[in-house]
Amino acid sequence: MEKTEATIITIGDELLIGQTIDTNSAWMATRLNEAGIWLRRRVAVGDSREDILQALREESAKVPLILITGGLGPTADDITKDVLCEYFDTRLVWNEAALQRVTQLLQRRGLPMLERNRQQALLPEACTPVPNERGSAPGMWFEKDGVVYVSMPGVPYEMQGMMEATVLPRLHTRFHTPAILHRTLLTSGMGESFVAERLADFEKGLFAIPPPVSIKLAYLPDFALLKLRLTAIGPVPADTEAVLERQFGQLQALLPDITVATADITLEALLGQLLLRNGRTLGTAESCTGGYIAHRITSVPGSSAYFKGSVVSYVNAVKQEVLKVGADTLQQHGAVSEAVVREMVTGALALLHTDYAIAVSGILGPGGGTPEKPVGTVWVAAGSRDRTLAKSYHLRHDRQRNTAMAASYAMNLLRTLLETGEAL
Amino acid sequence: MEKTEATIITIGDELLIGQTIDTNSAWMATRLNEAGIWLRRRVAVGDSREDILQALREESAKVPLILITGGLGPTADDITKDVLCEYFDTRLVWNEAALQRVTQLLQRRGLPMLERNRQQALLPEACTPVPNERGSAPGMWFEKDGVVYVSMPGVPYEMQGMMEATVLPRLHTRFHTPAILHRTLLTSGMGESFVAERLADFEKGLFAIPPPVSIKLAYLPDFALLKLRLTAIGPVPADTEAVLERQFGQLQALLPDITVATADITLEALLGQLLLRNGRTLGTAESCTGGYIAHRITSVPGSSAYFKGSVVSYVNAVKQEVLKVGADTLQQHGAVSEAVVREMVTGALALLHTDYAIAVSGILGPGGGTPEKPVGTVWVAAGSRDRTLAKSYHLRHDRQRNTAMAASYAMNLLRTLLETGEAL
Repeated sequence: MEKTEATIITIGDELLIGQTIDTNSAWMATRLNEAGIWLRRRVAVGDSREDILQALREESAKVPLILITGGLGPTADDITKDVLCEYFDTRLVWNEAALQRVTQLLQRRGLPMLERNRQQALLPEACTPVPNERGSAPGMWFEKDGVVYVSMPGVPYEMQGMMEATVLPRLHTRFHTPAILHRTLLTSGMGESFVAERLADFEKGLFAIPPPVSIKLAYLPDFALLKLRLTAIGPVPADTEAVLERQFGQLQALLPDITVATADITLEALLGQLLLRNGRTLGTAESCTGGYIAHRITSVPGSSAYFKGSVVSYVNAVKQEVLKVGADTLQQHGAVSEAVVREMVTGALALLHTDYAIAVSGILGPGGGTPEKPVGTVWVAAGSRDRTLAKSYHLRHDRQRNTAMAASYAMNLLRTLLETGEAL
Repeated sequence: MEKTEATIITIGDELLIGQTIDTNSAWMATRLNEAGIWLRRRVAVGDSREDILQALREESAKVPLILITGGLGPTADDITKDVLCEYFDTRLVWNEAALQRVTQLLQRRGLPMLERNRQQALLPEACTPVPNERGSAPGMWFEKDGVVYVSMPGVPYEMQGMMEATVLPRLHTRFHTPAILHRTLLTSGMGESFVAERLADFEKGLFAIPPPVSIKLAYLPDFALLKLRLTAIGPVPADTEAVLERQFGQLQALLPDITVATADITLEALLGQLLLRNGRTLGTAESCTGGYIAHRITSVPGSSAYFKGSVVSYVNAVKQEVLKVGADTLQQHGAVSEAVVREMVTGALALLHTDYAIAVSGILGPGGGTPEKPVGTVWVAAGSRDRTLAKSYHLRHDRQRNTAMAASYAMNLLRTLLETGEAL
């Protein structure tokens, strides 16, 4: 059985001058993968007729499925539709359903119909339109010489709606797809090289797995965590899963001391599970992370069941007045100190009436460092009324990455507390 | 004068199954662009010998510069180095400087040297090593048949250090590059289609600009804002800039009513400038956004000069007890209401002792909606002791996007307040 392979082509100058980070490709890749389609290449080209045509020609020689995003908006810098007409040797015709759709959408928003809005209903005659429930520009499905091409808008929300409602179901019936399955083990506390050393024989064993199932291991470092992902490919889902589960069991057995979770889950979601399971609540007291930990925790749907709130004490006055950190403590130890983060935990527990609190204070850069406390010095703490753990780090990256790392380390410390305390 | 064109090849299965979002490409694209190098294509391929070789062959036929990231770590799923040896018909030899570097790095971290660490000092004989000040795997610079290839690790922090310290300076001397210049106008309050309508003649005029300078206009919607970016390309920096400035002046003159800023700046940085200029301070009181606004505001270096802190009142008890929102108000209007966000502003101003406060309360989904207040209902407010503006929105996206939109709308409301109030 052959793998169905695909290419994603993203169109738009903004991707080539760095103004936009391509999040569409990762989303599409995940969905294709779940659907048993192997994404072989991703190609980004600018709003250039020649480059778009070249990409269509070259990729269609490699794979039977091409997904295209970008270049389908109402403004004049979009040229995708004309280029597709040229490539498929067809012409633009009015599409009645698409015209109605744009008309309704503008009416509902109380906006007049401009000529450039109307033109979104002009579609290549050779395509099957793909409805866009979330915007005005329809998608387009083409087939030529055995290759399927699907063109979608670049707006993530619109593209995602189209993929889920129409494109993925149609791909499922159009292609015969193998099973592609993943299992991810989350570990913490051991570096990538050392884990790899321990897994050397296990990895050799993966190459000896008899066809038709094959399994790959990938190492994915993620700040406080290291993710180990096994990917299995095989023709029969049940058989593929059985082989994968056997290998995943072996992997787990090799790393009991550093295993954090047996699913691909974020630290914030994992904390949510641990808190929910024990009916406990959480708050945060953040200085340098500026609310980022609270943001990550509340990014989990349903987090209101265990997260009560946060105090971002960016200045010392808020640490003192709101979190009741002692003036003496600040004076004696400085804001970035073990004593202060411990008092921040105590203050947050009392103010927010939670069972647990996370606290962070540090200097994330680029400015603010001193000889004794250089940029990158961070203290994190996690505690309950009974017990508080505190730890310091020296981060050496830029402000954004230091923030992300400090947040991960702080949440990982709460995880340790939860798992070594009453949660076990 | 020819443009110097480049391709970025990113290597790694994690990019093709959606486990990783490619932020490296956007960063590299920005830097190349600033250096006058036009990124023509971006290609992502998996950890597959054939696919990497194919990408190297195909891209080198198109452009004279290929930047490669990914696949240079210490674990067994990385194959880039071997494939590069095959492609450049060379072999791995020990590099003394790289070996010293790894040795020092591990010593400094108190870790033993493993064989797989040692092997990072094995480099293709045909390459010029690129020092890695931020990690253990050096980069590699190759030249073959007039094409430059630079291979770097996929870890963003390491790649960025290498680019800035070594790769960009070397590219500058190796290639003759034209000027690529941008000017961005930030607007707010008018939809993309309507702005495009007003700019129709201006856009036609861009096509009439005489060579050798050419200018393009791009529309980049960004939640509460719409960015209009002019890109100019020309052989002589001063001449190119003069043409660009003239056009940018015309663009500004066409949109005085909706212009927010004349630079490519984030809303949070813009707020920072406005607050700093007037010596004012800010705090936030966040319910549904869960600290995300505070996070964005504190992501700006130097924000401690005007940002004092935040209260994330995820539950009503915190709204009442910490922010002093009235129990009656909550009872009568519900937590998602104009009355509550106005009291949250008042509470934050008093608690955090700031001149301005932003408040948000809403239901961002997927759960929590009611018939009267469906998912997506959000109230935002921005105020000082004298005046508070409040506004409601009905967001229709997923939790993550709704959070980002609510934050942008709330910050934009403060911008309006600052610009229509004493700041003008």
